[in-house]
Amino acid sequence: MITIKDIMRARQKMQDVITLTPLDHSRTFSNMANNEVYFKMENFQKTGSFKVRGSYNKIHSLKKEELEKGVIAASAGNHAQGVAYASSMLGIPCTIIMPTGAPLSKIEATKGYGANVKLQGDLFDDALAHALSLKKETGAAFIHPFDDEEVIAGQGTIGLEILEQLPETEAIVCPVGGGGLIAGLAAAVKELHPSIQIFGVEAKACPSMGKSLLEKKTITVESEPTMADGIAVKKPGDLTFELVQKYVDGMFEVDEKEIAQTMLLLLERSKMLVEGSGAVSLASVLSDRFPVKNKKTVAIISGGNVDISFISRIIERGMVEAGRFMHFETIIKDKPGNLEKITQIIAEQKGNILDISLSHIGDKIYPNYAQLSLSIETRNREHIQEILHALHRKGYSTYVD
Amino acid sequence: MITIKDIMRARQKMQDVITLTPLDHSRTFSNMANNEVYFKMENFQKTGSFKVRGSYNKIHSLKKEELEKGVIAASAGNHAQGVAYASSMLGIPCTIIMPTGAPLSKIEATKGYGANVKLQGDLFDDALAHALSLKKETGAAFIHPFDDEEVIAGQGTIGLEILEQLPETEAIVCPVGGGGLIAGLAAAVKELHPSIQIFGVEAKACPSMGKSLLEKKTITVESEPTMADGIAVKKPGDLTFELVQKYVDGMFEVDEKEIAQTMLLLLERSKMLVEGSGAVSLASVLSDRFPVKNKKTVAIISGGNVDISFISRIIERGMVEAGRFMHFETIIKDKPGNLEKITQIIAEQKGNILDISLSHIGDKIYPNYAQLSLSIETRNREHIQEILHALHRKGYSTYVD
Repeated sequence: MITIKDIMRARQKMQDVITLTPLDHSRTFSNMANNEVYFKMENFQKTGSFKVRGSYNKIHSLKKEELEKGVIAASAGNHAQGVAYASSMLGIPCTIIMPTGAPLSKIEATKGYGANVKLQGDLFDDALAHALSLKKETGAAFIHPFDDEEVIAGQGTIGLEILEQLPETEAIVCPVGGGGLIAGLAAAVKELHPSIQIFGVEAKACPSMGKSLLEKKTITVESEPTMADGIAVKKPGDLTFELVQKYVDGMFEVDEKEIAQTMLLLLERSKMLVEGSGAVSLASVLSDRFPVKNKKTVAIISGGNVDISFISRIIERGMVEAGRFMHFETIIKDKPGNLEKITQIIAEQKGNILDISLSHIGDKIYPNYAQLSLSIETRNREHIQEILHALHRKGYSTYVD
Repeated sequence: MITIKDIMRARQKMQDVITLTPLDHSRTFSNMANNEVYFKMENFQKTGSFKVRGSYNKIHSLKKEELEKGVIAASAGNHAQGVAYASSMLGIPCTIIMPTGAPLSKIEATKGYGANVKLQGDLFDDALAHALSLKKETGAAFIHPFDDEEVIAGQGTIGLEILEQLPETEAIVCPVGGGGLIAGLAAAVKELHPSIQIFGVEAKACPSMGKSLLEKKTITVESEPTMADGIAVKKPGDLTFELVQKYVDGMFEVDEKEIAQTMLLLLERSKMLVEGSGAVSLASVLSDRFPVKNKKTVAIISGGNVDISFISRIIERGMVEAGRFMHFETIIKDKPGNLEKITQIIAEQKGNILDISLSHIGDKIYPNYAQLSLSIETRNREHIQEILHALHRKGYSTYVD
């Protein structure tokens, strides 16, 4: 099992390579959460996530004869960029196997750090299988994304930074996928300041660490699609599980709605782009279920790598959740002036129409009638109700999605 | 005319109230711009923009008897929040007149800083007129957004910070609206380090400072709609003009396309939300027209306040500009299987269809034919051409917007 010394050694090794990311107080989120909320901002880390810490420490620890054959990893996301960047800093040849469906921006970023990128298979598991067979073939060192002592020690350096940046920290909240980050973090923090509480957060769609803790052994869970794809790991690591069992005070789950809202809040209020996995810690702190109040609580914002084409959808999803957007259908008579009547009602209620379409064919539509679909920008949930009430008063039935 | 002492005094006054915002090097943008690019990140300033510096210094400088009647300002944006925040820090009653169309998020933020917000008139000029008449009525002190020595001195504190944070700075690029920020900045920097070059950037849609410099007097220009609404000022200030004339080395204009692309790049690569006005400085550094190369160049990111409903549109606009999105129309035969044929071609070219609609009525549509409208997510401009060529090879005519 790793010790605090391993983590301190990791810190020394990477001092000149890794960004000492800011740890900043947020007044806005402190007020919202009834806590003194601080962000440890690994979204501003090299490669846009904490992953580079573990990769760098692992690759740095390999023997010269191991390094000659280069390193290999499988990843569709942050681990790919972390390994590629760390290899380039150490001048080691690097091959990354990514599934063919990996976002183009991540493929480009990984290539940009000098890695040899191979696209293989539709799923991550296909890419992983190919990486492991290539490892056998070529003798390259395989860099595991989390279940490796050197990787865990590398991620743990974030704990040392937090203790230096805010020695009076009372609680730390950390995203959990395979468990590498929280295992290293907890090992560092609990050895030095056992009174600091450490909580892990998973996406409700894939709560493998929480379920494993309940079962007291690592188990595999079914995973549903989640915006926090970076922590959608179906089975935690053995090494990470052991450390989490030993050190972590509690686990939470957050759902997709909470993740989307938190991403939107971070963008709108803190001007920061945070990926789904990176937002789960704050989502948990903002929820009623979070047990710590009025304490100095550090939420780890673990990364900011969101594919740009996904951001609009997150914003739209978040706007729906926040009542800033509504979509509904209604039936109107197919006569001149009838569209004007309904748009007038919406204008009176200060709704901003974003999208409108009329259809004449469909289940609910009789001759001389048409189905109107409307998307409207709204202020909040109350505003949506006001608009719907105004329509109902004028005799319109509305079908809200 | 203000002196370096005024600016130093302003700095001392606001030391405990204003955030010392980060000045960070960007490897990504340095590579893109052939410069050593640094960001002075006022998007992380209190209230989300630099404006609070000037407001605070101005209000702090008022006499006790002036303050008794409170302060008043007119603004639809950052100035409102700056004045409101500064007033609350100094415990002064504050009234802000905003046009009725001001974004809800900005109204809420201004109220959140304790200001008494009044909505008046459709346009900014209506709000301004109302503020000036209220000032006469109530005797409240009017806080001008830029043309005021104390405001200019307050904005100038950003120059002192840059000199401390990066003493070897060689060039500074600054957004210009009314000219308050660049006037103060230039006065501070040029007095202490005259060799540092200072450039101003305006939106091409409203280049009042540049045109005034050419005419050697302040003139009023026509303003077109711009994403950089925060710097769409039709006539520069008299005080600011004088300082810009004295100190600034050159002015640039950037167009809407450059602004949108830069906002998107900042979001995607630097994980930062930056408003249009805040992005013009980097947009200029990225353009071929920027004359300084391989120098330590600080781009001032002046603010991050973008209404959330606007962000998706910026992203979409930026994606169009970057070739990450295309929209076109084509005519197909209205027979089973014909839609499949065309979607197959697009799938083969790895285009991701985002939006699709078919229409049977229209100018170009004859019986037995239908018009197909398609929106497709693409990798870049080459990819768009590949998709179009593939369609043309199969005999489809395409009408691209």
